Amino acid sequence: MEGDKRKPRSGVQSVEQGARILTAFASVRGPVSLTELSRAVGMPPGKVHRYLVSLGRSGLVEQQPVTGKYELGPLSLRIGLSAIGALDPIRYASEALPRLRDVIGHTILLTIWGDRGPTVIRLEESGDSITMNMRVGSVLSVLTTAIGRVFLTYLPRSTTQKLIDEERDRKDGAHSRGRIPGLDPDSISAEVRRHGLAAIDSAMLPNVVAVAAPVFDYQRALVAVVGTTGLKPLLDTRPDGPVARALLDTTASISGRLGFDAGAVPAPG
Amino acid sequence: MEGDKRKPRSGVQSVEQGARILTAFASVRGPVSLTELSRAVGMPPGKVHRYLVSLGRSGLVEQQPVTGKYELGPLSLRIGLSAIGALDPIRYASEALPRLRDVIGHTILLTIWGDRGPTVIRLEESGDSITMNMRVGSVLSVLTTAIGRVFLTYLPRSTTQKLIDEERDRKDGAHSRGRIPGLDPDSISAEVRRHGLAAIDSAMLPNVVAVAAPVFDYQRALVAVVGTTGLKPLLDTRPDGPVARALLDTTASISGRLGFDAGAVPAPG
Repeated sequence: MEGDKRKPRSGVQSVEQGARILTAFASVRGPVSLTELSRAVGMPPGKVHRYLVSLGRSGLVEQQPVTGKYELGPLSLRIGLSAIGALDPIRYASEALPRLRDVIGHTILLTIWGDRGPTVIRLEESGDSITMNMRVGSVLSVLTTAIGRVFLTYLPRSTTQKLIDEERDRKDGAHSRGRIPGLDPDSISAEVRRHGLAAIDSAMLPNVVAVAAPVFDYQRALVAVVGTTGLKPLLDTRPDGPVARALLDTTASISGRLGFDAGAVPAPG
Repeated sequence: MEGDKRKPRSGVQSVEQGARILTAFASVRGPVSLTELSRAVGMPPGKVHRYLVSLGRSGLVEQQPVTGKYELGPLSLRIGLSAIGALDPIRYASEALPRLRDVIGHTILLTIWGDRGPTVIRLEESGDSITMNMRVGSVLSVLTTAIGRVFLTYLPRSTTQKLIDEERDRKDGAHSRGRIPGLDPDSISAEVRRHGLAAIDSAMLPNVVAVAAPVFDYQRALVAVVGTTGLKPLLDTRPDGPVARALLDTTASISGRLGFDAGAVPAPG
């Protein structure tokens, strides 16, 4: 509420207490007893019960008739579905790009999976002139770019297989198989999963390197990939380096706004 | 909160006011101004603002920095996702079966889509002895039963096609094609969509009739089908008759608990 000038401090304290109780429901899986709730929020059971009466009347919480335990009610479902409907991955990601560019100091690309593969939908350019003719609408390789490799890793293979095959056929035409090593999709995926991001430092274009990281939504689906690219000596591509860290911090924060629960999936590595 | 004996009336009134404001967010699509909110809930703007301060501090609501409008915040998303995670279609449907059986007076079947097609997972038997050897685990025809026809109508054809083909091949073996009319999947679907339910009154088994209706979830996916079956003169299969109405009331109420928004899809007919 920082933007509000009128009454910066005055609120309704019991609303915040009620919200604390709702938060406890969101943390505990399944129905909870009054005692458990009271312990979770650190309030006496009698007080928690008064709140539950009103949360129940409102439909935010429901008491199970048989067990007497409490769970989230139909209004919680409704506001949740409404909040999901309002989620806007592209806006959240776009809002984060300028700051990320300032931290990293290199051009930042926001990409989604389009008809023809990884597609640039937003570009936040830095002072460095290295954008490799990249612009909004550009389609990237799934095998040889960092961004493409993140899509390759986290999209179902049924979505990516056709493009993988096409790209490999093209490479095989231009070069004898084996001249460009490391284009096996499974090895690429394994590498990306290990670090939670893709880094290309021995690029197809000499000296052009790149790092890219995934954005997931509440259904754990990959919805976008954020990447950065630059010249080899200038852009740090180490998976534990500051560029990678800034990128991962940003994509984790966007994913968080989309309801992604990182704790619910096996950690990379 | 009917089950609670301790303090049947005492609650925290401001929690209920706060919930009214949240409800307004769930009804309005997109961000809303303080004025719009105040009008929607019928409270003076100053009062609504005090609530918004606390709802904002809690994360239930968020103010957009640029427009100053309000929208549901990250905690709303979180409790909503938690409420979604706790949804239990089978339990809700099972809870509704005994009452439905008492209203309709015929055996009620709860079915889901299993590996081999429409599968009975619960049976609420009435006094009538007509259960046709149906039991939990029984698999029903997609073409010739009312329950099967609801699945046929609302599941993607890619899910049902194989079974449709198999059944038609079997029928063609037993009878010459055309002896059993009305087995065209598209005509069946059109008929079911027109009424929002399937009714079979000229059954494959002489005098055995059936009515069945769909249960949808918040993603508008068909999750279960509830049906009833009985002898022809005893079970009313008219799509606007009392049996159909009771069935549709029940399935609509189960779907509602699953967050299904009937208004959001084109009405049948």
